[in-house]
Amino acid sequence: MRKRALATLIVSAFIGALLFCSNAGAKDDALPAWNDGPAKQAILDFVKATTAEDSPQFVPPADRIATFDQDGTLWVEHPIYTQAMFALDRLTALAPVHPEWKTEEPFKAALAGDREAMAKFTEGDWAKIVAVTHTGMSTEAFLAIVRQWLATAEHTRFKRPPTELIYQPMLEVMAYLRANGFRTYIVTGGGQEFVRVYSDRVYHVPVEQVVGSSIATTYEVQDGKPVLMREPKIFFIDDKDGKPIGINLFIGKRPVAAFGNSGGDREMLEWTGAGDGARLMMLVLHDDAEREYAYGPANGLPDTKVGTFPQSLMDEAKERGWTVVSMKNDWKRIFAQ
Amino acid sequence: MRKRALATLIVSAFIGALLFCSNAGAKDDALPAWNDGPAKQAILDFVKATTAEDSPQFVPPADRIATFDQDGTLWVEHPIYTQAMFALDRLTALAPVHPEWKTEEPFKAALAGDREAMAKFTEGDWAKIVAVTHTGMSTEAFLAIVRQWLATAEHTRFKRPPTELIYQPMLEVMAYLRANGFRTYIVTGGGQEFVRVYSDRVYHVPVEQVVGSSIATTYEVQDGKPVLMREPKIFFIDDKDGKPIGINLFIGKRPVAAFGNSGGDREMLEWTGAGDGARLMMLVLHDDAEREYAYGPANGLPDTKVGTFPQSLMDEAKERGWTVVSMKNDWKRIFAQ
Repeated sequence: MRKRALATLIVSAFIGALLFCSNAGAKDDALPAWNDGPAKQAILDFVKATTAEDSPQFVPPADRIATFDQDGTLWVEHPIYTQAMFALDRLTALAPVHPEWKTEEPFKAALAGDREAMAKFTEGDWAKIVAVTHTGMSTEAFLAIVRQWLATAEHTRFKRPPTELIYQPMLEVMAYLRANGFRTYIVTGGGQEFVRVYSDRVYHVPVEQVVGSSIATTYEVQDGKPVLMREPKIFFIDDKDGKPIGINLFIGKRPVAAFGNSGGDREMLEWTGAGDGARLMMLVLHDDAEREYAYGPANGLPDTKVGTFPQSLMDEAKERGWTVVSMKNDWKRIFAQ
Repeated sequence: MRKRALATLIVSAFIGALLFCSNAGAKDDALPAWNDGPAKQAILDFVKATTAEDSPQFVPPADRIATFDQDGTLWVEHPIYTQAMFALDRLTALAPVHPEWKTEEPFKAALAGDREAMAKFTEGDWAKIVAVTHTGMSTEAFLAIVRQWLATAEHTRFKRPPTELIYQPMLEVMAYLRANGFRTYIVTGGGQEFVRVYSDRVYHVPVEQVVGSSIATTYEVQDGKPVLMREPKIFFIDDKDGKPIGINLFIGKRPVAAFGNSGGDREMLEWTGAGDGARLMMLVLHDDAEREYAYGPANGLPDTKVGTFPQSLMDEAKERGWTVVSMKNDWKRIFAQ
């Protein structure tokens, strides 16, 4: 009996030592999809500075908050945002019961797939499309609709579901930060409920760590059961200045790291950078037309209306010492799968 | 050397066993401030049903969400809400630079401490008081003002700081739930930023787990530094139907346990109870004038405008099987300190 207990103890110690070694090994290669260079080094240096117990810039685990934009930062946003794909597909699915859309704009152009007209859609046009595709049902029904759509949706160029067009290097950064005690939040201009459908499965980000744009809901009792109904009314836009506002509202702590890729992320990075101590602000630059897309117009890249990275943002990044990630040069591999 | 390693292993095992025993002991007495009875038993049964691995009502740790109202559920709300105390004290502090308040209502009555007039204040009157006491500064400045106020604030009857008038039995429930893998959220009609000042220190609830009413903020750059300015405009009221709406917005998961004490918590408990599986819905009834306060008007207790527990809520609780906690009979001890 005593011998057996002893054996158990020794085996436990041995397994413990093995686990320790494998962890130490993993740590050396936490970012395998990143090429060596200043971007990768900035991540490694930041984590070391904020987590080493003897570091003057040590951040207590409770304050280790990292925020990530989604579209163009974690997954593909061209040629159009995934949620716009969803809205257009939903419009098509609903068209048979809405014959009036055949003559009514913006529905007519959207249903016809008129890219030229759609490129000129105003925010008001998109709001009309969002109203008929995203509201009028309970939150539970909406989640089910998105889930069902994601099961068959396919990207026009890559012929794969949007949830597979996730950037492997960013997944590695998220996992590396979490392994070092950070909590990773998604802070997106996209719909909060939309992203919550797959955030856990795809990014290992639980729904309560998704901050996004939202529409108003009302509490109703239907057939004796309470439901939250989605109303055709915007409640909060989590973009541009809405990002620091949303972060303060939902998290209540200033992030120590923030990742974005467009003008919509400028204020989030400014807000993050304005705190004391070590900070990591990163912007993904889409400069890889071959493996993904190339757009700016910063650095002379082609201009775009989707995920615009203006030259003024590039200038601000340089001035403030934010790290710009070149997809082409810094990423060994683009997609997770 | 080998001997020393062996000794270390044995000592470790011994300490491990001790810790195990002390934990098991603590578990038996997790709710010492509760008298034995149906309320205490309901808590113990619920935790067992949702956490025992072989339970048909097992809830995965990620979904173990418990929500707590604050005023009257976690701390004293009579004779007036703590945040109303803050607003009135702040009004007095600001009065010297606002001579117009001497003649302008509702400020005149509030500054004079005219209880009779204040009892008749409309929501609009309170909104005016909130506007001049809670807005016009940055979020950081507001947190500092509240922190400073709390350092000297004193309850009129108990002559102690409000943050010491916390219900020990509720602290025990929170700690017991957390020890069993639950996350405890505060879901309050009070101000989210106000509660965040002390939530971690007093309740061990981190700021990101405080859902409350909020006012609009704007992002501004002042002297080159970004700030969030508090505007005199309500953004969200987290009360009544606002509670399930806020829970869905901020947490995105339906709670499995919810605790309240007034009509403002009705919809939160309905929403919680409408989910499948084991659920725990509890309402604290203030029926202890001697040790705290007695008010309803449910069960023939004195009527009140602060934290009203109407008879209709009592009837609904009975019908739906919610547990009503009698402060007088179920709580061995009221305050934590």
